[in-house]
Amino acid sequence: MSSLPVPEACLQTALLCADAARAAIRPLFRTALAIDDKSDESPVTQADRAAETALRSLIAGRHGDHAILGEEYGLSGASCDGTGTDIAASEYVWVVDPIDGTRAFITGRPSFTTLIALFHRGRPVLGIIDQPFTQERWIGVKGRTTRFESPAMPGRVGTRSCPALDRAELSCTSPEMLVPPWGQSFRQLQTDVRRTSWGGDAYAYGLLALGQIDLIAECTMKPWDWAALVPVVEGAGGIVTDWQGKALTLESDGTVLACGDPGLHARAVERLARRNRDLPPDRTIG
Amino acid sequence: MSSLPVPEACLQTALLCADAARAAIRPLFRTALAIDDKSDESPVTQADRAAETALRSLIAGRHGDHAILGEEYGLSGASCDGTGTDIAASEYVWVVDPIDGTRAFITGRPSFTTLIALFHRGRPVLGIIDQPFTQERWIGVKGRTTRFESPAMPGRVGTRSCPALDRAELSCTSPEMLVPPWGQSFRQLQTDVRRTSWGGDAYAYGLLALGQIDLIAECTMKPWDWAALVPVVEGAGGIVTDWQGKALTLESDGTVLACGDPGLHARAVERLARRNRDLPPDRTIG
Repeated sequence: MSSLPVPEACLQTALLCADAARAAIRPLFRTALAIDDKSDESPVTQADRAAETALRSLIAGRHGDHAILGEEYGLSGASCDGTGTDIAASEYVWVVDPIDGTRAFITGRPSFTTLIALFHRGRPVLGIIDQPFTQERWIGVKGRTTRFESPAMPGRVGTRSCPALDRAELSCTSPEMLVPPWGQSFRQLQTDVRRTSWGGDAYAYGLLALGQIDLIAECTMKPWDWAALVPVVEGAGGIVTDWQGKALTLESDGTVLACGDPGLHARAVERLARRNRDLPPDRTIG
Repeated sequence: MSSLPVPEACLQTALLCADAARAAIRPLFRTALAIDDKSDESPVTQADRAAETALRSLIAGRHGDHAILGEEYGLSGASCDGTGTDIAASEYVWVVDPIDGTRAFITGRPSFTTLIALFHRGRPVLGIIDQPFTQERWIGVKGRTTRFESPAMPGRVGTRSCPALDRAELSCTSPEMLVPPWGQSFRQLQTDVRRTSWGGDAYAYGLLALGQIDLIAECTMKPWDWAALVPVVEGAGGIVTDWQGKALTLESDGTVLACGDPGLHARAVERLARRNRDLPPDRTIG
């Protein structure tokens, strides 16, 4: 066992996972199956499950001593330290979301992505964002510069400088996610920024890593929604925390704030946090 | 001059326009230029203008007697009937939007599109939606089945059946477009549908034509925003009107309602119109 936080074998596994997810998902996109809602389970769930099963089997076959956390099948596998229960303390835990952006997927938008992450003792150290059709792939490894593999779409890794909130392009997936009290905080931030774009899911964090977006503020996010984004954005020069500016952990409250320019981060936190102090959250995630 | 509403030469011109727009736009996407806002004019405007200039020159060279209406340069060219002023009565008017979805373009999302439309005596009879990077192209010609050219992305032309609002996938580009009184009407419709997705611009109408989305309700739309969508959606089995169910014309009020299943249209209009009757619009477009 290597003493590095990200053994090379794990990186290879993550890349194989992204390839396997592409193979599992591509045939189901924009098909009647994907929109047939007459069966007992939603077809998106079928696609999610098919892909998650493929990923779990691949990871388990290569790293029998790693735990796996996924949206569809929860937690499985033993942890390296043998406790098997405390995933925050486990040496290596894979966190996967085969189809991030389910609304995008079922409406045929190629902005859904596959997310593969590896936690080391509770912190994400490896993250992949993969779009199966545009074939864009962001590969983030703690301590390294993020890699962007893209045969057809342009883009260069590196967040951009953005000295003031009123110059910032803000992004958020959906107004429906902005439940109380997060919505009020978000709208406070929104009044300060230059513009807001909607939609995007994890793909927007990839665009932030390419210097196309300055700020992303989202909430009600699960660990599999944000885990892969942290190494990608940090390896491109940005920062990802919760809305209070604290590092994301498996116990975080579901808020996620990504800044391309770390110098903008404190101001964004301040605009988001004021309301949070007045009005404690009425929703947290487990 | 052919007596058909869409002469074959016009279709060829429209396809050449879409090719020319791709060539003009592709080098500017996700570049520093596209996000440099220190110059006097916005860089998106630069890209828009470069592309619109190319389109105008192409159209004028092939159809010297047609009028051209575009977002950047307004109306130009003589009309076929020689009046030159009444574009609604002119025989042929080209209506172009080189970059529909400016927010998508400047944030690096490949959901912006080029829109090329041809009006015949005030009604759109030809429309192209083109995405320069995914290379998806929808070609709608009045009276013909819409064609979807796509070397890499899957999809088959044909709107899908959706018997009830509570099964419908609704889409809208941005909550910010939903100014009073349209916002209230939209939220009324939104409570009845299955789900709402955000973002998409004209690309979402292409997805509706592929049977991926059931309903799109938008407002504050200019003729160049909706002109190309009408032949594409209608040639795929759907219907496009304003929120009152009336055919779109150059004098329309900026509301646009697209339904994949024409059987759902009356119910959507009813949900949107109730509020309109109570509260007359405070915004119209010229």
